[in-house]
Amino acid sequence: MKRPGQRGPQDIELIIVGSIGIDTIRTPKAVRSRILGGSVSYACIAASFFTKVGMVGVVGDDFPNRYRQLYRRFRIDLKGLQQVPGRTFRWSGVYARDMNNRRTLRTELNVFAGFKPELPPEYRAAKYLFLANISPELQLHVLEQVRHTRFVAADTMDLWINTARKPLMDLIGRVQMLTLNDAEAKLLTGEDNLVRAARHILRWGPDYVVVKKGEHGAMLFTSGDVFVIPAFPIEQVIDPTGAGDAFAGGFMGGLARMGTKQGAVRRALAYGSVLASFGVEAFGLDRLVRLKKTEIEWRLAQYRRLVQV
Amino acid sequence: MKRPGQRGPQDIELIIVGSIGIDTIRTPKAVRSRILGGSVSYACIAASFFTKVGMVGVVGDDFPNRYRQLYRRFRIDLKGLQQVPGRTFRWSGVYARDMNNRRTLRTELNVFAGFKPELPPEYRAAKYLFLANISPELQLHVLEQVRHTRFVAADTMDLWINTARKPLMDLIGRVQMLTLNDAEAKLLTGEDNLVRAARHILRWGPDYVVVKKGEHGAMLFTSGDVFVIPAFPIEQVIDPTGAGDAFAGGFMGGLARMGTKQGAVRRALAYGSVLASFGVEAFGLDRLVRLKKTEIEWRLAQYRRLVQV
Repeated sequence: MKRPGQRGPQDIELIIVGSIGIDTIRTPKAVRSRILGGSVSYACIAASFFTKVGMVGVVGDDFPNRYRQLYRRFRIDLKGLQQVPGRTFRWSGVYARDMNNRRTLRTELNVFAGFKPELPPEYRAAKYLFLANISPELQLHVLEQVRHTRFVAADTMDLWINTARKPLMDLIGRVQMLTLNDAEAKLLTGEDNLVRAARHILRWGPDYVVVKKGEHGAMLFTSGDVFVIPAFPIEQVIDPTGAGDAFAGGFMGGLARMGTKQGAVRRALAYGSVLASFGVEAFGLDRLVRLKKTEIEWRLAQYRRLVQV
Repeated sequence: MKRPGQRGPQDIELIIVGSIGIDTIRTPKAVRSRILGGSVSYACIAASFFTKVGMVGVVGDDFPNRYRQLYRRFRIDLKGLQQVPGRTFRWSGVYARDMNNRRTLRTELNVFAGFKPELPPEYRAAKYLFLANISPELQLHVLEQVRHTRFVAADTMDLWINTARKPLMDLIGRVQMLTLNDAEAKLLTGEDNLVRAARHILRWGPDYVVVKKGEHGAMLFTSGDVFVIPAFPIEQVIDPTGAGDAFAGGFMGGLARMGTKQGAVRRALAYGSVLASFGVEAFGLDRLVRLKKTEIEWRLAQYRRLVQV
């Protein structure tokens, strides 16, 4: 019998909280309607290659059962997945010709408007927690429910920087890692230079700041170190949706598997970059769901070569 | 006595052809007037840390003697530096707040309008040649004058892609390496994706394509390989003018010193990135002219750490 706090190999190591949506995505070459999306879907599936993941999110009663089955195929624990009356969150967007800029065509919050993330008791002992991009109030609400979490990472966006700065600052003071994009890092700190912006955020509390730069990769800052993570070059970008979430999922999954020693953190970040690079090779989750572990390791080896001086 | 074709340690290994200008640079924090600039000034001084460089360019009779002395301090051979009656090329520009975008305020071609680059006889046996960004017709005119050059790299820009495509394509078919920025690579090839754009250019002849991405670094493509070169993160960017030329100079200087085997090419590119990173730390050439070789090696070591997975 296990003592309280003792953990076995089937225990959930990583909890991911965020949005689940039904997306319609238009690129210059194609349109795909009503496909599974949301930060939690991308991040959980990416992380599932490395560790046992628990999902926290909300769907409506229209949520297709095949999507739930898909999560199960990746051994994602769904005790934190709430289903409530109403329609699932919907998003549609269109990408410009170079695939770097996108415009939201329509957002229907639906059941997501009333989302209050609750952690099932068995999630509260997980060592790793990723708070994907939801309001800082909800992220704080999740933080209140955990006790033994060793490593909390939170993602955020310009909307919360502009409209919910106070709870966001509260959150930043309480997490081990903040992830945000380059423009958001500058907006949050008022610094024009990324290095200064990241150092500024580190002074507010986190041990790690990850600045995401889309097709240019990402940078990891700690108080004493900088790590530059180029994006893996992809010849045929089909759909960039969810790339940042696949990156975060691969990274957090890698951390949950390998720990947070310095070499492990870099390796986990490289896994994040690799997962993101696969993610953009097909629409929505199509590439991630047919990904094999050997492909991940093969691309990681290529990735090391890519940056080796 | 040396046989013809035999080379000694004091021989000129690298020839750099391009513009020499007197710049006025305005940043959000300061203005500096009438300082030494031009692609050749940046590239030659950067390269001089690695090899013996010969300069080909033109100045007017107003060119200050102290600038000529400065070149000499870096043991740059000036036999290819023409001085003709008239005023030296002048450029002024202003940087936006984030230091990434700049606008040209004024260009006076002056003596540069009549520039016809001529290689002194002793330059024609140099193994490495860098054709900085001048018109492809002039670049071809230089190519006609060399016989034993092992490695020719040419830089170009949107202006020539739009107005001198035919000679540019002729040039591209005759050089070992083309350098250009990401937007220019897409413009030149009509490809929206950088990897495809670079592969497209490789099919036209060059063995190497270097795509420059400013603060995001650069990428090197060969037919079988990709190398990603992040920019060294700089906390205080004072003046980005000439960063691309310092990059090219450091890279070509590194190649001239170390050769073109694969490991050496990557190391030379890392040197280019390091030289560019120093260049932006002060106005114009101010940081490069007080740079020490030990600082270069120290930053190269930091650079390797920065990208190490």
